[in-house]
Amino acid sequence: MKSATEYFSGSGPPVLAIDPPLQHARRDANPGGTVLHVRGVTIGGPEVIVMAGPCAVESEEQILATARAVKERGAKVLRGGAYKPRTSPYSFQGMREEGLKLLTQARDETGLAVVTEVMDARHIDLVAQYADILQIGSRNMQNFTLLEEVGKCRMPVLLKRGMSATIEEFLQAAEYVMKGGNHEVILCERGIRTFEPSTRNTLDLNAVPMLKRHTHLPVVVDPSHGTGHWWMVPWLACAAVAAGADGLLIEVHRNPQEALSDGSQSLSPDGFDSLMRKLRAVARAVGRE
Amino acid sequence: MKSATEYFSGSGPPVLAIDPPLQHARRDANPGGTVLHVRGVTIGGPEVIVMAGPCAVESEEQILATARAVKERGAKVLRGGAYKPRTSPYSFQGMREEGLKLLTQARDETGLAVVTEVMDARHIDLVAQYADILQIGSRNMQNFTLLEEVGKCRMPVLLKRGMSATIEEFLQAAEYVMKGGNHEVILCERGIRTFEPSTRNTLDLNAVPMLKRHTHLPVVVDPSHGTGHWWMVPWLACAAVAAGADGLLIEVHRNPQEALSDGSQSLSPDGFDSLMRKLRAVARAVGRE
Amino acid sequence: MKSATEYFSGSGPPVLAIDPPLQHARRDANPGGTVLHVRGVTIGGPEVIVMAGPCAVESEEQILATARAVKERGAKVLRGGAYKPRTSPYSFQGMREEGLKLLTQARDETGLAVVTEVMDARHIDLVAQYADILQIGSRNMQNFTLLEEVGKCRMPVLLKRGMSATIEEFLQAAEYVMKGGNHEVILCERGIRTFEPSTRNTLDLNAVPMLKRHTHLPVVVDPSHGTGHWWMVPWLACAAVAAGADGLLIEVHRNPQEALSDGSQSLSPDGFDSLMRKLRAVARAVGRE
Amino acid sequence: MKSATEYFSGSGPPVLAIDPPLQHARRDANPGGTVLHVRGVTIGGPEVIVMAGPCAVESEEQILATARAVKERGAKVLRGGAYKPRTSPYSFQGMREEGLKLLTQARDETGLAVVTEVMDARHIDLVAQYADILQIGSRNMQNFTLLEEVGKCRMPVLLKRGMSATIEEFLQAAEYVMKGGNHEVILCERGIRTFEPSTRNTLDLNAVPMLKRHTHLPVVVDPSHGTGHWWMVPWLACAAVAAGADGLLIEVHRNPQEALSDGSQSLSPDGFDSLMRKLRAVARAVGRE
Repeated sequence: MKSATEYFSGSGPPVLAIDPPLQHARRDANPGGTVLHVRGVTIGGPEVIVMAGPCAVESEEQILATARAVKERGAKVLRGGAYKPRTSPYSFQGMREEGLKLLTQARDETGLAVVTEVMDARHIDLVAQYADILQIGSRNMQNFTLLEEVGKCRMPVLLKRGMSATIEEFLQAAEYVMKGGNHEVILCERGIRTFEPSTRNTLDLNAVPMLKRHTHLPVVVDPSHGTGHWWMVPWLACAAVAAGADGLLIEVHRNPQEALSDGSQSLSPDGFDSLMRKLRAVARAVGRE
Repeated sequence: MKSATEYFSGSGPPVLAIDPPLQHARRDANPGGTVLHVRGVTIGGPEVIVMAGPCAVESEEQILATARAVKERGAKVLRGGAYKPRTSPYSFQGMREEGLKLLTQARDETGLAVVTEVMDARHIDLVAQYADILQIGSRNMQNFTLLEEVGKCRMPVLLKRGMSATIEEFLQAAEYVMKGGNHEVILCERGIRTFEPSTRNTLDLNAVPMLKRHTHLPVVVDPSHGTGHWWMVPWLACAAVAAGADGLLIEVHRNPQEALSDGSQSLSPDGFDSLMRKLRAVARAVGRE
Repeated sequence: MKSATEYFSGSGPPVLAIDPPLQHARRDANPGGTVLHVRGVTIGGPEVIVMAGPCAVESEEQILATARAVKERGAKVLRGGAYKPRTSPYSFQGMREEGLKLLTQARDETGLAVVTEVMDARHIDLVAQYADILQIGSRNMQNFTLLEEVGKCRMPVLLKRGMSATIEEFLQAAEYVMKGGNHEVILCERGIRTFEPSTRNTLDLNAVPMLKRHTHLPVVVDPSHGTGHWWMVPWLACAAVAAGADGLLIEVHRNPQEALSDGSQSLSPDGFDSLMRKLRAVARAVGRE
Repeated sequence: MKSATEYFSGSGPPVLAIDPPLQHARRDANPGGTVLHVRGVTIGGPEVIVMAGPCAVESEEQILATARAVKERGAKVLRGGAYKPRTSPYSFQGMREEGLKLLTQARDETGLAVVTEVMDARHIDLVAQYADILQIGSRNMQNFTLLEEVGKCRMPVLLKRGMSATIEEFLQAAEYVMKGGNHEVILCERGIRTFEPSTRNTLDLNAVPMLKRHTHLPVVVDPSHGTGHWWMVPWLACAAVAAGADGLLIEVHRNPQEALSDGSQSLSPDGFDSLMRKLRAVARAVGRE
């Protein structure tokens, strides 16, 4: 089986007639596919990259224990929120700068690269001091001033799809970042909003081949937010890799029942261990590592 | 027929179990309903307020001619975008500060109050110098840092519903603004995203009574964005008033065919004239002015 | 204000490019608009027709008392299900033929015309003996064999929009009936399925002008199923008339708390009385009776 | 990795609180999982079953050539429509009984089992003479009289999810069939209706683990209808198997450009060959055959 990159770069004309057209994000601007290098990790190459960690940084002990656990089991990037976009202003909003410091501490100890969210253009410099990859969350996918500001940075941006964003809007959001000069954009499918109530969102794996046909950027998938149920995560994670994803975002908490947010969608270290073993088999089956 | 305010303040328990609960936006925090006063215009009272104008400020001649036209026909507030959130970075982004100046010029000449969008927390002070009401657009409904910043202002905020925001999320977004101390929030239903392709969005008039049951804030409706078709606007505008709306946002362009954005959903001055006559009859029928 | 019929027959080209094109349902097949006459009731004319009654026929006493109550307050058609399409096979399925007999008894006593659902092509002859209008429910909007069979009848058909049917699919379903020779079709908007959880469905009033622009058939609206909350029904009923609807379906139960199905969306006789008074004012305001 | 059956039968309490509860379809009515045997094919066991063939039977030459092509490449069941539910009454409606005869001819020659759709309760006896598995299409998922009638048959039923049916409604539809005594039901996810326009539907792979957690019935996936693009089918087919599907429905046409319906989503025999090779690797990786 050809790799996703080979397949899509060799395939026919795009499905979407995007107007005005994409200039930087379009597939034929880099037919071989964009490969990013960050702190020794290669994203967009043959290896499927797993980014794992808690929804939110909660304490030194929590983030360090979780970082060690996911590192041992094969994760390459540590995820964790210091600034949390929450529906209610009365919910836990994250540890903010203190959380960033703890992420850096975990990176220094484990060697994992760090991805964390930036919600406010005024925080970019601060977050960039601590993170290796800047995350733009779903609710900010069309916060165009934020997109323009991270477009001026020189570090990779993980851009999450808005919960009701079309594929075209998602690609245009990436174009906003790239227009500013920052071509290191990773696209993340994380579930869309539909009528179905049994899952938190509807993880849309159709997006993976559709995106790869229209853009050269790496595509990763977040089955934790996409489903909202930890026991579904391994099934959808394997499915995402089979659908051609270049990486995964997985929520892991050393003790999901005690998580301050999103515990019901977080795997325990044991569950993560089991997922990684399944994932290796599927990745090999589709010609990935 | 009782007014919407009387009706909803007297009605039973709320449908939504919001958790954590709203503190400032909840209906019983101001059972009689919030009434705002801005530049001589009363929003949330018996009178249905019409806010009209072009999608974007395009030139001095365009905004002045349109302002005069809508003022003559009964509009109380002038709408018009100086900063435009556009899906593509290559689309017209608005005249920015120059556009704000033209809006003020139109206000000075006509006496209309001005509502215009602010997209970036760093622009709030600038926009606030020129506008009477700050608009937060749909794509920024969960841009929480922007919500917090306008919460520190002392001027009314028109908050548009996100295109796939639930009623609960919309109310929580208003709570973000109010928590900062700014209680002058106007909620605007502007169409949600559904499977139906014949309209730009699906204007959700169910939202009007549902919002009014849960909050004391004024509720206005934007049938121009909600439908995307100028010929549908009069029907849905009348329907919105019948559903209990406190006001309307209507796109009017002196020459819709030449508009730089959203021409197909803009009424001509003649069409607006006809709409206003229909609207008066419906408003009287439901006990409004 | 021109009547809906005048307005739409005089308006521009259709929005939808339907292919293969409609032959019988298309607007220009009968530009003046179809007007139906059934048991002395005129549907599609200047008068807004109210069809009211319980979700399901439950007993002789219940249906007779409800029929009298809605007749007194101005309803022209009695609605009530004898065959009920229920999600679970273990829910109440209706009184079937016994229910039909009770509907006829109520018709004989009150003079109301009767509309009731037919779910199975094999029951059409039976239901047609008792009913004046055959209802095709939402779940059967694309039950093409049922559509073809009622197309062979010579009595009006009330066709409800499927819960995720596009406007185009809805019109094509009407075309299936009309192709068989039965041109007496009434279209009913009854709410679509969206992401919003606070209402049972999202009543889509955009559908009213959009349908009327593309077809000459009468359009009615069911705000009871469309919202699922009795207290919202008066607001959306008035809004539907303002949006151009030719009629309404309203669930009324003499004792909503005891209804075997859909009690939470049924008005009491008092609530219905109040609704009818509001409705008269709005109908007059938009040039209807 | 445990098989899907082992995994789900051993997992925790169900997510959905279905009321009234399922009696026959619920997981714990057959914790080991239902395994069906039809014409030598085992559905629901360790082997992933591929059902392939054209959207519609078009001619003797077409169906025989396609049947041979898919048989050679490993398909076990031949799919093909003789009765076609089409949105417009003016589109090709299928070859009807003649089409059924051709399917039987293809079965006799190749040994493939045959699955084909029945749209009308009055055709069940006829279709059952020719088919091995009766298909209920998406538009009929809540045609309750049809469900009850196939519940009286003694042959397997392939039940497709309605295009906006929730998981709970889908399970209740299966319960309608099983209540009649026919416990041989296969559930088929085939894409749901969302706001996304780039694909025909949004294939919902979340449904696979969610269904398997709540029911013991086999679950298959149709990526051809689910995406509407032939080039996406291999990616989503592999993803479906990784997500735990027991089988696949794949549209194959010996000459997709000439197909009377759904050509754009049909694989050529060569494309199907390539898909089957990929699929074998993924099936092995997840412990299936």
